[in-house]
Amino acid sequence: MSRPTLAVILAAGEGTRMKSSLPKVLHAIAGRSMLAHVLASVKQAGITDAAVVVGPGREDVAKVAQKELPGCAVFTQVERKGTGHAVLAAKEALADGKDIIVLYADTPLVRPQSIETLKAALADGASVAVLGFHAADPTGYGRLIVEGDALTAIVEEKDATPQQKAVGFCNGGLMALSGEHGLALLEAIGNDNAKGEYYLTDAAEIAHRRGLRAVARPIAEEEVQGVNDRLQLAAAEAVMQSRLRAHAMREGVTMTAPETVFLSHDTRIGNDVMIEPNCWFGPGVTIESGAVIHAFSHLEGAHVGSGASVGPFARLRPGADLAEEVKIGNFVEVKAASVEKGAKISHLSYIGDARVGAEANIGAGTITCNYDGYLKHRTDIGAGVFVGSNSALVAPVTIGDNANIGAGSVITRDVPADALAVARGRQVGIDGWAKTYRAKKKAEKEAKTKG
Amino acid sequence: MSRPTLAVILAAGEGTRMKSSLPKVLHAIAGRSMLAHVLASVKQAGITDAAVVVGPGREDVAKVAQKELPGCAVFTQVERKGTGHAVLAAKEALADGKDIIVLYADTPLVRPQSIETLKAALADGASVAVLGFHAADPTGYGRLIVEGDALTAIVEEKDATPQQKAVGFCNGGLMALSGEHGLALLEAIGNDNAKGEYYLTDAAEIAHRRGLRAVARPIAEEEVQGVNDRLQLAAAEAVMQSRLRAHAMREGVTMTAPETVFLSHDTRIGNDVMIEPNCWFGPGVTIESGAVIHAFSHLEGAHVGSGASVGPFARLRPGADLAEEVKIGNFVEVKAASVEKGAKISHLSYIGDARVGAEANIGAGTITCNYDGYLKHRTDIGAGVFVGSNSALVAPVTIGDNANIGAGSVITRDVPADALAVARGRQVGIDGWAKTYRAKKKAEKEAKTKG
Amino acid sequence: MSRPTLAVILAAGEGTRMKSSLPKVLHAIAGRSMLAHVLASVKQAGITDAAVVVGPGREDVAKVAQKELPGCAVFTQVERKGTGHAVLAAKEALADGKDIIVLYADTPLVRPQSIETLKAALADGASVAVLGFHAADPTGYGRLIVEGDALTAIVEEKDATPQQKAVGFCNGGLMALSGEHGLALLEAIGNDNAKGEYYLTDAAEIAHRRGLRAVARPIAEEEVQGVNDRLQLAAAEAVMQSRLRAHAMREGVTMTAPETVFLSHDTRIGNDVMIEPNCWFGPGVTIESGAVIHAFSHLEGAHVGSGASVGPFARLRPGADLAEEVKIGNFVEVKAASVEKGAKISHLSYIGDARVGAEANIGAGTITCNYDGYLKHRTDIGAGVFVGSNSALVAPVTIGDNANIGAGSVITRDVPADALAVARGRQVGIDGWAKTYRAKKKAEKEAKTKG
Repeated sequence: MSRPTLAVILAAGEGTRMKSSLPKVLHAIAGRSMLAHVLASVKQAGITDAAVVVGPGREDVAKVAQKELPGCAVFTQVERKGTGHAVLAAKEALADGKDIIVLYADTPLVRPQSIETLKAALADGASVAVLGFHAADPTGYGRLIVEGDALTAIVEEKDATPQQKAVGFCNGGLMALSGEHGLALLEAIGNDNAKGEYYLTDAAEIAHRRGLRAVARPIAEEEVQGVNDRLQLAAAEAVMQSRLRAHAMREGVTMTAPETVFLSHDTRIGNDVMIEPNCWFGPGVTIESGAVIHAFSHLEGAHVGSGASVGPFARLRPGADLAEEVKIGNFVEVKAASVEKGAKISHLSYIGDARVGAEANIGAGTITCNYDGYLKHRTDIGAGVFVGSNSALVAPVTIGDNANIGAGSVITRDVPADALAVARGRQVGIDGWAKTYRAKKKAEKEAKTKG
Repeated sequence: MSRPTLAVILAAGEGTRMKSSLPKVLHAIAGRSMLAHVLASVKQAGITDAAVVVGPGREDVAKVAQKELPGCAVFTQVERKGTGHAVLAAKEALADGKDIIVLYADTPLVRPQSIETLKAALADGASVAVLGFHAADPTGYGRLIVEGDALTAIVEEKDATPQQKAVGFCNGGLMALSGEHGLALLEAIGNDNAKGEYYLTDAAEIAHRRGLRAVARPIAEEEVQGVNDRLQLAAAEAVMQSRLRAHAMREGVTMTAPETVFLSHDTRIGNDVMIEPNCWFGPGVTIESGAVIHAFSHLEGAHVGSGASVGPFARLRPGADLAEEVKIGNFVEVKAASVEKGAKISHLSYIGDARVGAEANIGAGTITCNYDGYLKHRTDIGAGVFVGSNSALVAPVTIGDNANIGAGSVITRDVPADALAVARGRQVGIDGWAKTYRAKKKAEKEAKTKG
Repeated sequence: MSRPTLAVILAAGEGTRMKSSLPKVLHAIAGRSMLAHVLASVKQAGITDAAVVVGPGREDVAKVAQKELPGCAVFTQVERKGTGHAVLAAKEALADGKDIIVLYADTPLVRPQSIETLKAALADGASVAVLGFHAADPTGYGRLIVEGDALTAIVEEKDATPQQKAVGFCNGGLMALSGEHGLALLEAIGNDNAKGEYYLTDAAEIAHRRGLRAVARPIAEEEVQGVNDRLQLAAAEAVMQSRLRAHAMREGVTMTAPETVFLSHDTRIGNDVMIEPNCWFGPGVTIESGAVIHAFSHLEGAHVGSGASVGPFARLRPGADLAEEVKIGNFVEVKAASVEKGAKISHLSYIGDARVGAEANIGAGTITCNYDGYLKHRTDIGAGVFVGSNSALVAPVTIGDNANIGAGSVITRDVPADALAVARGRQVGIDGWAKTYRAKKKAEKEAKTKG
């Protein structure tokens, strides 16, 4: 059985290089805050106990943490005295002897498997375990000094001997400490250094000196990329997107240009779905198998049924629920609307707060007038209805099954099933008018140009 | 003169890693199936005789093959016993002593020049010729064992000696066999190996042992990239796109961000055409010189005349035929419509099954109502016509030259040349109404919010 | 104090590999011609005196030069006899003893700092200074032969000894010549070579032979990338875009996919602005802090106020001026219009030549009919106005504050403040009509299909 484990997530960094009024760890990648990504990995690694350490006054960070992992404890690091000090801000949570895993909310690419690697190292008898990566260029990183299987120290670049600098095995930051010795090790960390700070990394050497086992396990460099500015945020986003796209493609999704498809952490896509270039998926999208998402589509909070066709240039907003074989064409926006089997909304339409019945055909330029300036109202369009182009349906309004709306109508009253409704002016003509008009306008234009 | 040559295209792979209901070789790159790409290269290399080997029940694959290369023979490989066995499924076609070139339908990036290289090797006296590439990392590939100019064997990774593994010259898969010896060599291939399969690659060693000449010729690694899953499909698409874009740019097309422009295998673009970022071209597009395709445009089966301007956010569907100097603006869809010289459709319109005469000006929000729910009808708009914004033209309908349509009209009857036609309601007003309405609505909203 | 300096910009290259009717140096990157980029770097390096050398009949190039750097002299190189000859085409400007810096209009990525490096080298006593880069693969480049701090010669690849070929320090092209010796050195360049041309590069060796100081200073290879065809133009664009994006991100702009955001040389973006993937910025765009530019937006000559939201699928054309907290939604085009605080234009609208008052709500499908076929007219929409969906406002027209326009109206006359205006047909219905119609149409369709 798994040993009781507490994840300590350090989220108190100021992030001044982000130049943002939003706390750094709330910046998002793949539609979810970095903090939430780390908490999700913690949960996926089977850890349900967590302590999040935030900066003073950061209720916003605390709120996100507790939303993502209900019941997690939040602690405030009042003074900023290093990572060792930050972990001890959660001392109250550390007291009950659980294994401790320290993560960073600004290192959002850590996979659950890597957290499990740390858990396994503790289960295997280590008192301290860290994750290290082999850097192509180790300059600037802390080096992991390993003798046999023992991690004897973590040495910062500036303190490293030339021999140590030659080591390419670098500190990934994450650390696990056993429940038996963890708190004692943390409390043994001193601040006798240039900055007067308490460095979590010292725990490795302390453990080794005390005859406890400290070990290093490998992790991909990519997973421990930290985010300190918006360039690094974009770089982390790119890694996450690559993962999400590769996963989708392996499961049978075609993307002709995956590098132009932007997914959310929770996008779910069935097999034999085709996604053309330049599509964007916000949170909460599910696409059933066999659907086609054409180029330049923008989906968020939407469900796309099997065999449906969306776009190009379509926007599905939250609450868009397309049944199978539905067709949503170009320059069409659907919001909070269920579109039933086989219905077509092919061009230049806005369908909001509505139901569109099965096999209905919504003409180009149709608009559901769902808002009166104060409240939203619903439009109910029955099965088999044909709405002529350029019509406005003023909600609340119901169009009965198989009814027909004349092109260019403004429909303000319910239409019975099988009825025709038209609301437009009659066509009148004046022969020769345009000729006279042209002559007059040309004269005006000339006058204006001269004037 | 060229020797009679038969291309044998192996297209029987199951492609389970594609996780698709579509046969692997029918998945498309650059708007055309992989099989069709290979057949096109065969044709471009001057080979008109081909045999395609498909899996049992794959009439869909056979149909594509015969459409792409009319007259090609199709054979079924019933049991799957290796590549040598697959080629012999076409034995009937091999019997007449033509030179044989074996290609793979899931290796779609082979250039015609490489096929010609194989033909030249046979013409030069070789009985067997293969294409090899120099791999940065040869792990996993079969190695080409060459002594002097002689290819003595193709050795699979698992059967290779350490010395052979050190060879970086790898088997690209394609093989040519002379008409004189080809069939005999193929029939000499045995299945005395771990899997009990017949490996085409054995033909090289057999030829060498028989004192026949076997040779290896170089090919770029890129050309022999195989496609077994959707990640590899995307990778092949990327290579093909790079080729298409580079070709266009060399011919005088400007692409400010070529990596965001997606072409089809048959896209034809004149010089001094500007293509802004994020444009998508489906099959059948031709663009004449001097045209500008603005960002976010989506074209398919369309012709764009010289000096025309398309987009941003324009969609040209099959049958859109724009004459010179035409302007198609944002959020405009054109389908099966000829737009004559200098006409403008600048905003938010749908023009389908129509003619738009020279210098006509189609106002924002104009829609041709071409579909009555059952049949499509045509709209004919004369030269110099001015269509006011938000108009609906209910087809079949003809607007005479230089006529003028009032904004917001629904036109259901023909309009004579030079006439004015208006079909809309009269403007009426109620002073102070909005003030009363606001008060009422605010109260309603408050009631609802409380309730 | 800075020494008087003249920049000589060589812009006479024919650019035949561009296959363009536009002179090569007028092709644009990041929304500005290459020539203008070089002149801008010259200005930023504090140089106000420039001579541009153009080919015969290139008034278009001259015009751009003089627009970008008013007062710059333009000289014509009639015969094409090499770079040394080209510089001397500007002899008249060289006569007054200013320091000379030679740049190339087809090398648009040179940074001002690099020009300053050249100036500093002259100020430091050099008579000739060049910029060199360390090439990964130096093949094809001229080599800088350096002894101690002295540049003794610039040797072309074809003239280089094997030892010289091994040198990886390559000629970046740019050269500075002191005012004291520059003209004499230039005039000493001979044409005793295979092509009979005068090579500017010879100036280094001549200076060295005369006992003058010639030096080489380092520059990044990227800065001296030349543009000779459209592939190189795209490559230069990519470098420029990377610089512009990195600058924006460092200043606090979030781009989730920076590689899909295309900026102009003059795009100004405040901090905490979010730019979603696939946005395009033409010249003249300013975005205030806290705004969000959603995916698929296209902006040009526009101002976006603080906290505003634009897109997805929005197009802001020149003269679009959005105040704070404005919302522009999908499939909306705004041109030459000021949209005041908090106003919303959420869907499928065209607003041109207009004012939209504070907190106004413009319904889906609203169109300002600003063009009568001859002249443009203005639409003035007051504060708090509610425009119902699918309305057309026929300019010139004024809608008073807090007025209400009924959906589907065509408004041709002014509407007083607080009034309601409606201009549409009355809704009429025919029960059962659609049923009969369906039967009739089905029969027609069958007849047509059979016929």
